[in-house]
Amino acid sequence: MQTAYFIGVDGGGTQCRTRLTNQNGDVLAACSGGPANIWSQFDSAMKQVCQLLDETLHAAGLGPHEAGQTHVVLGLAGGNISRVRAQAQTWPHAYASWQVFSDVEIACPGAHNGQPGAVLITGTGSQGAVWDGQQFRCVGGWGMSLSDQGSGAWLGQQALRLALKAHENLVEHTPLTRALMAHFDHEPETLLAWSVQATPAQWGQFAPQIFQAAREQDNHGVALLACCAQEVSALVSNLSQNGRYPVAMLGGLALPIYPWLSEGIQAMLVPAGGDALSGALRLAHLCA
Amino acid sequence: MQTAYFIGVDGGGTQCRTRLTNQNGDVLAACSGGPANIWSQFDSAMKQVCQLLDETLHAAGLGPHEAGQTHVVLGLAGGNISRVRAQAQTWPHAYASWQVFSDVEIACPGAHNGQPGAVLITGTGSQGAVWDGQQFRCVGGWGMSLSDQGSGAWLGQQALRLALKAHENLVEHTPLTRALMAHFDHEPETLLAWSVQATPAQWGQFAPQIFQAAREQDNHGVALLACCAQEVSALVSNLSQNGRYPVAMLGGLALPIYPWLSEGIQAMLVPAGGDALSGALRLAHLCA
Repeated sequence: MQTAYFIGVDGGGTQCRTRLTNQNGDVLAACSGGPANIWSQFDSAMKQVCQLLDETLHAAGLGPHEAGQTHVVLGLAGGNISRVRAQAQTWPHAYASWQVFSDVEIACPGAHNGQPGAVLITGTGSQGAVWDGQQFRCVGGWGMSLSDQGSGAWLGQQALRLALKAHENLVEHTPLTRALMAHFDHEPETLLAWSVQATPAQWGQFAPQIFQAAREQDNHGVALLACCAQEVSALVSNLSQNGRYPVAMLGGLALPIYPWLSEGIQAMLVPAGGDALSGALRLAHLCA
Repeated sequence: MQTAYFIGVDGGGTQCRTRLTNQNGDVLAACSGGPANIWSQFDSAMKQVCQLLDETLHAAGLGPHEAGQTHVVLGLAGGNISRVRAQAQTWPHAYASWQVFSDVEIACPGAHNGQPGAVLITGTGSQGAVWDGQQFRCVGGWGMSLSDQGSGAWLGQQALRLALKAHENLVEHTPLTRALMAHFDHEPETLLAWSVQATPAQWGQFAPQIFQAAREQDNHGVALLACCAQEVSALVSNLSQNGRYPVAMLGGLALPIYPWLSEGIQAMLVPAGGDALSGALRLAHLCA
């Protein structure tokens, strides 16, 4: 029997990682590179991915010949958009198999060690996916204007809107709103100029400050996190389907928001097992 | 005594209008042209304004000589941003006087026939100003990401976020959320592609549909308008300063949101007297 190899790719908005194993699951190589979001930058993402795949084979001492024995599973940011996913699926390659998923999807079989289950990623943005062992269903991830509720970027934006309201005497000022406005020299015009350019990650940079304020019983901080917990709870409930699937929370907000969730929601959550790359490799075995 | 002339300019995000009177208040000319937002497009706005001023003088049979006897008051969108306002204030001109305000500010003395009072404009965006007879204080108008609460754009965005949540089973679907998703063929990806390019006016186009749904007792429609009314009420209260200043509501949402406001808030409101151009002309007399 011919030797088979497996490569998992986890392509996110900030970096792309690969892991190559043999059929026994021994890790032969791992590489990382720049961002790979196929929705915002399709061509550069696909080039990044292909280059990283070559590097990974090379790092394992394998060459173009063994590519034909290698099964590749890509989990790419933006892979939830069917049009670009289809485009990435038909990208020319020389591998034994080539399957495209979203970065959130590959996290499911990773977090639940190959068993059916769901993940909710709440970091800069928010997105969830549930895997029934055969198919994925995704929730959220439609960008800051329409979605991303309960995420760091969403939380930062809510807090800055509130800080500006407090500055204009539309709501009471608290230490949190004063501190946020102080970041912009208490000048709405400075905040405005910043907001026009701000990326989701920049909106999200204020999340730790909001958690800290809430721990200090700041009224606005507490209200913001109560609202954030409610949004996260709705996502967890939706993914769990009344306890049918365990949900693993990942991302920068997963731990800090946990104490703000009700016992009922906490009971739907489980710790993540393996990482997204291990999920991609499990899918690669299934797809092989 | 030398004859004096007065020109008021109302420069908004979609069009710019002028009115020229003599010292008796007789209207000698009126012109209109393209947009004049000095924050988003300073140079083209100022060129638009200057060209329109020339046309206005010409239409009244006046020439460069009479410009030196003419007092100009400009109310320009973006004039609430102090940096660009200062830049517009020092723009070279040959008029007897030249004063720059925001478009919302000139509406105050217009709406209250020269008396102190406030205006709240809730159209695509939301912004308020109060005039004590000498000075202005502005509230809101810092863009959709940070401000514009209770406006048409804000309402449209809230409704589309909700429609997407309903589509993903995070909240119940109602006729309103189904109708909104139907506008995008029930495809989140179509909505996403639209949202990336959408202007505030495009978000705001869904406002009439939301008011209609609320009149038909749609649960989401009613909740959205209750929230909108709350935001508008906070702005009205803030501008009114406990009944110290009457508030005139202007803009496309002014009439439809009125029945949703409490009696206490309605009591702070008065119908608008003159328009923004009449306010600019009153200020031009004061500045002369």
